[in-house]
Amino acid sequence: MSYTAWIISIGNELLIGKTVNTNATWLAKKLTLLGYDVRRIIAIPDNEEDEVEVFRDAIRRSIRVVISTGGLGPTFDDRTSEYLAKALNRRYVVNDDALKLVTETFRTKGLELTEPRLKQAKMPEGAKPIPNPVGTAPGIWVEESNTVIIALPGVPAEMMGIFENYVEPKLREIGPRLHFVERSITVKGVPEADLAPIIERGMKMSNRVYIKSHPKGHEIRSPLVEIHVYVSSEDEKAAENEINRVINFLMNAIKERNGEILSQ
Amino acid sequence: MSYTAWIISIGNELLIGKTVNTNATWLAKKLTLLGYDVRRIIAIPDNEEDEVEVFRDAIRRSIRVVISTGGLGPTFDDRTSEYLAKALNRRYVVNDDALKLVTETFRTKGLELTEPRLKQAKMPEGAKPIPNPVGTAPGIWVEESNTVIIALPGVPAEMMGIFENYVEPKLREIGPRLHFVERSITVKGVPEADLAPIIERGMKMSNRVYIKSHPKGHEIRSPLVEIHVYVSSEDEKAAENEINRVINFLMNAIKERNGEILSQ
Repeated sequence: MSYTAWIISIGNELLIGKTVNTNATWLAKKLTLLGYDVRRIIAIPDNEEDEVEVFRDAIRRSIRVVISTGGLGPTFDDRTSEYLAKALNRRYVVNDDALKLVTETFRTKGLELTEPRLKQAKMPEGAKPIPNPVGTAPGIWVEESNTVIIALPGVPAEMMGIFENYVEPKLREIGPRLHFVERSITVKGVPEADLAPIIERGMKMSNRVYIKSHPKGHEIRSPLVEIHVYVSSEDEKAAENEINRVINFLMNAIKERNGEILSQ
Repeated sequence: MSYTAWIISIGNELLIGKTVNTNATWLAKKLTLLGYDVRRIIAIPDNEEDEVEVFRDAIRRSIRVVISTGGLGPTFDDRTSEYLAKALNRRYVVNDDALKLVTETFRTKGLELTEPRLKQAKMPEGAKPIPNPVGTAPGIWVEESNTVIIALPGVPAEMMGIFENYVEPKLREIGPRLHFVERSITVKGVPEADLAPIIERGMKMSNRVYIKSHPKGHEIRSPLVEIHVYVSSEDEKAAENEINRVINFLMNAIKERNGEILSQ
């Protein structure tokens, strides 16, 4: 079983540069910490052709978990649920459980069940609605072959509320029993290019470790580089030992190169 | 001629949720203002298979402009240039112009031309280096069939410096003569679902206009919605007239619905 994941971010506002895609970063971090391997983040417009194509592509590749954000609201261009049904070759129908959730939400809030709102109860046949603790549109959980597709609203508070309350526990249940450990050190006075061979040696110490340098200062005048190290492992203790071993190696090698370690 | 664009963001830090992809948002805004239609933003890991696949996919679809960020630095996992050569089925060679740029940069800065640094002068055969006014790695400009591929570093200051100094003027030259005009109004007291039919009517007023609502407050308790309107047109005056016509319609319809317009 491989634990791959894709994040699909739906919304024209992302493609015209109006909105920074913080949703994807938040989800990527969550999925990584759960032990999933996020392989792609794709932003596409509110558009049938693109949405259907990308959902089908993820299923064809047997990506284990696909999370989309956006397109579940009440307006005319919020059509993720409908396009998802099309991608799955399923009917797009009123879901009884979703209708109950939506009706209940509107009743307690004294709102009328208008046509645009009723749309939020329609889903691909066989999907399960996920309660929205913040807004009105339920999320969607639907499985096809080896893939779980989870459609969430694009409003960050709703997306996070649904994820933390309902999606995260389920993904932990069906996910790998992995522990993810990370550590950063900041190095002053050694240009990134001179850290490169040290990092390369560190990477070779273990196939569960990943090391990446992020230049922060001016490359030449005053080199300042953050080195980010992370490890995934079935065993928390093993992950801790692994990362300590690699960090120690890096710090010694950097000191030999007369680098100053500012923080870790 | 269609003026489509893709943005390819390369780097594991994006996929583990360590870094928010502000580069893509910045580029998307720039491309939109130049009149390009950004169709996809794809974040992928530093990985041969993904990079080659995504570059080839963009070429196969005749995307006019493809901009990648990341993977041009000196470390072992910075291999965008090499993978791009592979995607293009071209040799990966030392580019004479790039070598001059790189040697000159190092000479003036009193740095040695080490092996990892020399790598920054290697490019797909037939590519042109783009000077980097901030760091050492030149950008890459390479054309294949109808597609221009521009590879930029991932460090924001370098990416922006190269783009604004060299890429932007060239894309304006080969791009459409389009003007992009946008305007936002913020509405208090009308839930998004009730704005939906008004927005739909506004969209039907013109096929060059796009209207999108962004809920800001609490959907039910105190609805606050930003309505973002944008228009592209060959003619600046026509774009201005179009957007005024649509904004006037929206403001009147919202006032009839007893909505309060907070700002525009």
